[in-house]
Amino acid sequence: MDLSNRIQGLTGGGSDGWDVFYKARRMIGAGVSVTELTQGEHDIRTDQSILDAMYRSASGGNTGYATVPGTNSMRDAVAARLTARTGVHTTRDNVLVTPGGQSALFASHHAVCDEGDVALYCDPYYATYPGTLRGVGAIPRAVPCLPENAFQPTFSDIAEKSAGAKSLLVNTPNNPTGVVYSRETVEGIARACREYDMWCISDEVYDTQVWDGTHISPRTLDGMAERTLVVGSMSKSHAMTGSRIGWIVAPEDVVENLFNLATHTTYGVPGYIQDAAVFALGEGLALEEKVAEPFRRRRAIGQNILAEQNVVGLVPSEGAMYMMLDVRSTGLSGEDFADKLLDAHHIAVMPGESFGASAAGHVRVAMTVEDSAFEASLKTLVGFAKELQP
Amino acid sequence: MDLSNRIQGLTGGGSDGWDVFYKARRMIGAGVSVTELTQGEHDIRTDQSILDAMYRSASGGNTGYATVPGTNSMRDAVAARLTARTGVHTTRDNVLVTPGGQSALFASHHAVCDEGDVALYCDPYYATYPGTLRGVGAIPRAVPCLPENAFQPTFSDIAEKSAGAKSLLVNTPNNPTGVVYSRETVEGIARACREYDMWCISDEVYDTQVWDGTHISPRTLDGMAERTLVVGSMSKSHAMTGSRIGWIVAPEDVVENLFNLATHTTYGVPGYIQDAAVFALGEGLALEEKVAEPFRRRRAIGQNILAEQNVVGLVPSEGAMYMMLDVRSTGLSGEDFADKLLDAHHIAVMPGESFGASAAGHVRVAMTVEDSAFEASLKTLVGFAKELQP
Repeated sequence: MDLSNRIQGLTGGGSDGWDVFYKARRMIGAGVSVTELTQGEHDIRTDQSILDAMYRSASGGNTGYATVPGTNSMRDAVAARLTARTGVHTTRDNVLVTPGGQSALFASHHAVCDEGDVALYCDPYYATYPGTLRGVGAIPRAVPCLPENAFQPTFSDIAEKSAGAKSLLVNTPNNPTGVVYSRETVEGIARACREYDMWCISDEVYDTQVWDGTHISPRTLDGMAERTLVVGSMSKSHAMTGSRIGWIVAPEDVVENLFNLATHTTYGVPGYIQDAAVFALGEGLALEEKVAEPFRRRRAIGQNILAEQNVVGLVPSEGAMYMMLDVRSTGLSGEDFADKLLDAHHIAVMPGESFGASAAGHVRVAMTVEDSAFEASLKTLVGFAKELQP
Repeated sequence: MDLSNRIQGLTGGGSDGWDVFYKARRMIGAGVSVTELTQGEHDIRTDQSILDAMYRSASGGNTGYATVPGTNSMRDAVAARLTARTGVHTTRDNVLVTPGGQSALFASHHAVCDEGDVALYCDPYYATYPGTLRGVGAIPRAVPCLPENAFQPTFSDIAEKSAGAKSLLVNTPNNPTGVVYSRETVEGIARACREYDMWCISDEVYDTQVWDGTHISPRTLDGMAERTLVVGSMSKSHAMTGSRIGWIVAPEDVVENLFNLATHTTYGVPGYIQDAAVFALGEGLALEEKVAEPFRRRRAIGQNILAEQNVVGLVPSEGAMYMMLDVRSTGLSGEDFADKLLDAHHIAVMPGESFGASAAGHVRVAMTVEDSAFEASLKTLVGFAKELQP
């Protein structure tokens, strides 16, 4: 019995660059103590006050079907948040609540791409991007972003790939690079979307984790609100990764279509989780800062360590919970460096190659272990890179 | 800016037969007291013990990403349940946990149908079926099931539509008809799937609500385990509609592909909801019976009322939380009957036409209000049909 070509082709062929990640997991399974700086998951749990809000909602009887596009209170809360953060007037009719950011990425591309349409994404990229585009039958086309531009796409980088494309997927603050797109970059994105008549799908799930510069949403630029679908989530901003709640903010007619799609794909999001999210959003900046603070601290620790040497290069660390390190001076690929580091020091980092060809010779370090372990690991990594100098 | 043809074509054109449903909602909004016998939602809430288990899990720290295909304990619990209920040996490698049954229906069709493939479904059908098939780019093709066969598809009904089809979607116990497919029917389904080399997608979310006869899963028949994807859910069996948790049981290689799809569409199901579901499944038949009992009682009430008259016909009421009533003796369509009943008596039922052409001249009554209101409503409905006799 044959499965669909589409599902069988989701992840393309060959190594996906996650060998080191799984090797680390096997070592842990075998009892080895490994410091994992791999996944984008907080080392804190969801705040108890949020879980208490969820329990109150569920115990109060909110256990039946929630309205498919999201509860009014959650849609209003998201709309108010976007309006406050970006100045673009946003109402509940612009909001679809989704079971997580990944679901929002999938639904966004489903909404704008038909089978065989070309969909652009920036390389380096978050691991699921190309497969998500293939999942809706689109043909993913990478926009290579150069290390010498700190992996920010220029207008001409995008324009070179835009002929015939239906959409452009961007992500700022960026995973895996930790870069926050500059105004010039976002203006180039907007110009390319307008000139080539592309939809912009803007993944902004790290918008509360900005250490340097300012987060600029493409939706705020001229002529962009009508062609931008913003993907948001409670995962990173509120340490609610496991709760699977996110959203799409888009023009009203797009949301109407997404509502219809949700009826046929997810049938909504648990009402008690939406109530918990409304509570969490109601806590305002204080809670978001509390969740972001450990990464801000560790980023400072990391910058100090890297400033004292010139072997490992640091891609400007401006946002998100990652640092992208340039280890090309060792003469090794990111994969080889990560593999050897794991063997020699039991420290697991992600090879840049896991995130696309543009990040070759780099490794991504997730700042997701407590400060002293993070500091010690990074010092060990730098020392290891020094030893490897040719 | 054009959206995808696929999302714009999800629900086809014209009236979807839900006018009466929305009219009732508007009347309620305007302060009119309407008895709604429309949606398939329990009049009880999720059991507090299940919500307590969820809270214990979340407060205990299970708030991070759960493994994408489902926790081992949830996959094991589903596998054990299927093995016990059907005798077909099932392991966790046969199980993908999904955020609800609708998500399982979508993923199942994504797994077996490419763009343009023909996918069969039985008419009458649950409202989302054709749109779900269109959502993966498939071409839905109805298998008309005749009222004189109690809406059960015969082998020849299916065979007549099977040429070139990739899959067949069936649902027993059936929504909207309340019929439980006979052994002969399920054997016809299996024969058609084997002879025409089709996948069988078997929606069994009502498998705990059987009043007459026995639930037979197509997966249990010869040569069917390797071509059947069973869709299950905690929604109907455990009154957990709002928690959005379900599953697909399928061959191991299908589950591997579905795992990959889930990585790109949902990224899993909240771990604390899975823990709650494991708790609920651990309560065994007692809890399932408790949830099913009100429908069993009301079905008996309904049968008694209908036995005393010969104006309204009852499609054999064997399972699920619905009764399908034949009102053709009134000379009205199901839509007109439902509309007039709503105007005259403020009782809302679903026109058969909402569920496909085969159920024309019928109305579906959901047994989802407390017993005395249900009894009074059904008596009013019968009296109303009598008055309408030509």
